[in-house]
Amino acid sequence: MRELFEPASVAVIGASQDDNKVGHIILRNIIESGFKGELHPVNPRYQEVLGLRCYPTIKEVPGSIEMAVIVVPAKFVLQVMEECGEKGVKAVIVISAGFKEVGLEGAQLEMRLGEISKKYGMRVLGPNCLGLVNTHHHMNATFANEAPKQGNIAISSQSGAICVVVLDWAANINIGFSKFVSVGNKLDVDEGHLLEYLRDDPETKVIGMYIEGADRGREFLRQAELTTRVKPVIALKAGRTSSGAKAASSHTGAMSGSDKVYDAAMRQAGVVRVKNIEELFDLLQAFSTMPLPQGEGVAIVTNAGGLGVMAADACSDFGLTMATFEASTVEKLKLKLPTAASLYNPIDVVGDADAERYDHAVRTVMDDPNVACVLALLAPTDLVDITSVARTLTAFAGSSPKPIVTSFVGGKGMMRSIDMLKAAGIPNYPSPDRGIRALSAMMEHRRSMERAEPLSIKHLEADQEAVDDVISSVRAEGRLQLSEAEGKRILRAYGIVTPKEGIAQDLPSAIELADSIGYPVVMKVESPDIAHKTDVGGVVLNIDSPEEMARSYEIMLSNVREKMPRARVTGVSVQKMIKGREVIVGMVRDEQFGPVITFGLGGIFVEIMRDVTQGIAPLDRNEVGRMVRSIKAYPMLTGARGRISGDVPALVDVILKVSQLSMEFPSIEELEMNPVMVGNEGTGVTAVDALVTIKGEQQ
Amino acid sequence: MRELFEPASVAVIGASQDDNKVGHIILRNIIESGFKGELHPVNPRYQEVLGLRCYPTIKEVPGSIEMAVIVVPAKFVLQVMEECGEKGVKAVIVISAGFKEVGLEGAQLEMRLGEISKKYGMRVLGPNCLGLVNTHHHMNATFANEAPKQGNIAISSQSGAICVVVLDWAANINIGFSKFVSVGNKLDVDEGHLLEYLRDDPETKVIGMYIEGADRGREFLRQAELTTRVKPVIALKAGRTSSGAKAASSHTGAMSGSDKVYDAAMRQAGVVRVKNIEELFDLLQAFSTMPLPQGEGVAIVTNAGGLGVMAADACSDFGLTMATFEASTVEKLKLKLPTAASLYNPIDVVGDADAERYDHAVRTVMDDPNVACVLALLAPTDLVDITSVARTLTAFAGSSPKPIVTSFVGGKGMMRSIDMLKAAGIPNYPSPDRGIRALSAMMEHRRSMERAEPLSIKHLEADQEAVDDVISSVRAEGRLQLSEAEGKRILRAYGIVTPKEGIAQDLPSAIELADSIGYPVVMKVESPDIAHKTDVGGVVLNIDSPEEMARSYEIMLSNVREKMPRARVTGVSVQKMIKGREVIVGMVRDEQFGPVITFGLGGIFVEIMRDVTQGIAPLDRNEVGRMVRSIKAYPMLTGARGRISGDVPALVDVILKVSQLSMEFPSIEELEMNPVMVGNEGTGVTAVDALVTIKGEQQ
Repeated sequence: MRELFEPASVAVIGASQDDNKVGHIILRNIIESGFKGELHPVNPRYQEVLGLRCYPTIKEVPGSIEMAVIVVPAKFVLQVMEECGEKGVKAVIVISAGFKEVGLEGAQLEMRLGEISKKYGMRVLGPNCLGLVNTHHHMNATFANEAPKQGNIAISSQSGAICVVVLDWAANINIGFSKFVSVGNKLDVDEGHLLEYLRDDPETKVIGMYIEGADRGREFLRQAELTTRVKPVIALKAGRTSSGAKAASSHTGAMSGSDKVYDAAMRQAGVVRVKNIEELFDLLQAFSTMPLPQGEGVAIVTNAGGLGVMAADACSDFGLTMATFEASTVEKLKLKLPTAASLYNPIDVVGDADAERYDHAVRTVMDDPNVACVLALLAPTDLVDITSVARTLTAFAGSSPKPIVTSFVGGKGMMRSIDMLKAAGIPNYPSPDRGIRALSAMMEHRRSMERAEPLSIKHLEADQEAVDDVISSVRAEGRLQLSEAEGKRILRAYGIVTPKEGIAQDLPSAIELADSIGYPVVMKVESPDIAHKTDVGGVVLNIDSPEEMARSYEIMLSNVREKMPRARVTGVSVQKMIKGREVIVGMVRDEQFGPVITFGLGGIFVEIMRDVTQGIAPLDRNEVGRMVRSIKAYPMLTGARGRISGDVPALVDVILKVSQLSMEFPSIEELEMNPVMVGNEGTGVTAVDALVTIKGEQQ
Repeated sequence: MRELFEPASVAVIGASQDDNKVGHIILRNIIESGFKGELHPVNPRYQEVLGLRCYPTIKEVPGSIEMAVIVVPAKFVLQVMEECGEKGVKAVIVISAGFKEVGLEGAQLEMRLGEISKKYGMRVLGPNCLGLVNTHHHMNATFANEAPKQGNIAISSQSGAICVVVLDWAANINIGFSKFVSVGNKLDVDEGHLLEYLRDDPETKVIGMYIEGADRGREFLRQAELTTRVKPVIALKAGRTSSGAKAASSHTGAMSGSDKVYDAAMRQAGVVRVKNIEELFDLLQAFSTMPLPQGEGVAIVTNAGGLGVMAADACSDFGLTMATFEASTVEKLKLKLPTAASLYNPIDVVGDADAERYDHAVRTVMDDPNVACVLALLAPTDLVDITSVARTLTAFAGSSPKPIVTSFVGGKGMMRSIDMLKAAGIPNYPSPDRGIRALSAMMEHRRSMERAEPLSIKHLEADQEAVDDVISSVRAEGRLQLSEAEGKRILRAYGIVTPKEGIAQDLPSAIELADSIGYPVVMKVESPDIAHKTDVGGVVLNIDSPEEMARSYEIMLSNVREKMPRARVTGVSVQKMIKGREVIVGMVRDEQFGPVITFGLGGIFVEIMRDVTQGIAPLDRNEVGRMVRSIKAYPMLTGARGRISGDVPALVDVILKVSQLSMEFPSIEELEMNPVMVGNEGTGVTAVDALVTIKGEQQ
């Protein structure tokens, strides 16, 4: 990656004298950005491009070349790549389009590109990308016509157009970039690599990403997890919804994972996820310029009650706390504010507030220990000298250990002041809720920096051999779907409790069985001919005694004889009757992220209320705890409505076991325990049913 | 209202020569806006202001005066009002602050203001407001320094600062206003009056409102209901959340109703509710310039896949349908689009698309019968002449019967094109999701215009006398809380079924009772000493036969004797055992909106999942149907999970009856039926419990 971002020598293959051609623009951009290393155009058609000597192929270039930018048509790229390999180039940027994104033929071409890069150990950025900028290395190797300013934001984008949008947007405000990467088709370099590199990049304070799909989802997750402990990562994942995902895959051929899985992945990795491009911009600005808030309280200063109300609404929407001021703060505010002012949060400095009043209010609340950050609001009343208020607030940029953002709301009359604020590095938002959203993201990131290190996942003892046995015997029969009994054997091998059960051929042995299991029990008719046992009266729940066993046995068999006289009855199964709260624990294997564990309350809560949560294995105890607490129906598990709390620790254990099982047996494709019965505190949980699907041997 | 908005003669009382004073600015604004009627400054200190002869009091002004603007300090307002009344002024605008918003003393002053206005029958706008503009009457009677352009948007705002913000914002884009009203403390004129007036105002195409609280909520609701059938009403209600509401009431002393009630009110009235000021601006722009979409399909045209994906995501978020094109549309698109283009929705005209390609794509989809509206997206790639694309799109402004909005995303490079679009009346949004939101609001309004006329509410026959009897006997005992039996008597008077029940002193009569009620039944011990019957084994559910009655009777009495030996047992109650799905129907009386009916599924669905809905009485059958269908757990009522559907029509009837009861008996303060059991289709619903609270007689 070093050679990609900080090459000592660069060749532009496909450099052109024609200033409309991409091969010209890139070379010019590299020159104009002040690149200090060796730079050589390569093109057999020219002797010289932009005053530099041009070589027919890279092999003719004297000396060694660390990085090459390839801008030739797709059909020539393979040959050029071979030449780069032979020349000993360490990294290439393939700008050229015409690969995976245009269909099957292009995808094949791209595969061969991958083979060449592997053969020579060359890093590849692209193909089908806009290029890369490293402002601190004075290298703009893109064909964008807007050159990014130097700054502390690193950007990676899977869409070239979004890159251009970001650059055009940045040109409008005082924001600069450290690195700027268009990843294109991500043949090799992807977001995972970039996070690994940018994590330790001293020039980068915040990382923004536009993602359509992640092929190496687990690696992305791992790198993001490590990165967000050091600096914020803000991600815009497009193709969130089925219609969006359709557009995404016709666009760059990216496979969009299910949005819920991305949500879980980003939450686990501490990534701040944004919903749209405006929010991405808004948050980058705040993180780029401001220190992180070190507490929870927000103070709002406004010259218009209405704006204060909106900001307070937004605080509540984003779950932020409005600071309660110390008495001394209120006293101090009183000194310089008029009687009509509101001294409590939001502080209303009243419509005729001047710069001095704003300064006093902001300075005073900044000193309050309950205040972690400030939002200053301003409406353009006639009575205010807006620019002088803006000038006063700029004093807080850089100097204050607490972040301040502003929302000067209006249009024409605000322009100059807003420009002043931005120039000074104070983010201004066109509406109060956007300012509050920015503050909430900073708090979210601070909390995620402070989160516990992942617990080393305690590997529970498990009988892997037993699982192997089950899987191979199922495979031997040519099946992929396990029976309930087989599924339960796997669960038990991982220490998950299933109900005691057995099969009896006659009443005396059924009673004996029930005695050994312990009452209450469930009895079901066993017959190869009966699929729906309940429908023929073949199930009796909640049997409490041998007498009830006897009575139920007779009734059940006569029911069955009456309704299905020709069914062969081979006996009855007797199972411990399990009481508790129904939950569902399941696992599916996601193409990008691997095993995804799902948890929710059973029945209608999952089916109708869609009250479920996801986590990506391996999960540690903290993360499982967060998952369990995050469902809306969580109070059902902890003793809502006067009931005793359920055995939540035992439930957490079961989810951890499923996580471990899914990591240790990649051949298990899908697993669902529905229901798992959660008993009262201290009484454990039991998986009553198990549905397991495995992969075929060839996969 | 006519005299307020279109006065033939105006006096400005408190007019000043000092150009920093509000009394000067207003007079100047009226003159500069080109007011064509009589205009007289009033102030004892001057002979002349701004070239107009100034009178010491309004009574000295020759001729009659239709409208007066009052800008004197609060303490002089009462006297000035009296003089206005004596002069025969029809409407006054009280700009002066220092009333309700400053506390008790101010509120008293405001009350006396109200008395004077009633005495003389004068309409009052304010006090504590910015004034009023009627651009088509050439009258700017505000002290804002930004004069609104003429246009078709009417604005009403409860915050003067928000007025200023809107004006400043509007000055920045090509948007004009018909009426502009700062309602201030709403002593007299409020949103209800304004809606009534603006509904028939030919100059107004769309109405935007900033509301903090509504004192005459029901009247607002009624006027809004009528208005949204004619033109869109977009409302920003601030103080949505408890922290916001606190700020709102310290601001203008407005009582903010519960946000859920506002939500229900606005939904019932067809008002489009927005969450923040940006959304208000965004929607006003679209409604002001564009025709309404006449169908559901959205077509997206983009030169950047990434933007298309975001727009598609937003479609899904806002519940919009992406249009599926006719085959002929796709064929026609193919004619002028390159092979790399995507011909399906979103249409990707590719990064190097020029104006002609955009024109072809937009024109073609506009002709598709499945397309109701178009969003055109553009990212500033180097290869595009952005302004020529913008120029091409301006051709669709005004001429096309289908709305088109754009999202040219970027910063510096976009400015000129965006200005062109706005000048032509095409709303441009800085991100695709905001464009989609605007389209979704237009569809929402179109649907609400098409909604059925409120059904004339069929007054069900009810025994009002019986209800009166219950209420007076409860009052006679000095109670406000009804017993369960009394509550049920009221329900039955309105034809709501309650379970058959009775009380028996011994087993034989209990069995006789059970026989007459019909099995299964519930038996409960009756004792003045036992509060929690279940705890002492004093309740037996689901009794099926006389034999079970006998057995249960013995067991129950021995339970009670054992656990509470000294309890006096007066008999047993026998009640029909009701099966079905539990729901809750309740009513509380909201200060602003009157009776609010709540509906939800019982138990955890209400308590933990908070899955409830509200409606404001009187409700018609359509609205009740919408309420019932709107809860998340609705499938539980219609036979989810293989069950038979519940008796939804009978449930709707019960809610309608509660609505009628709450309208006919204002003395009923609160009512809750929890649970109401909804039986299977055709079997009716039964209110098992009833909790009713009444008002004291003096209220």
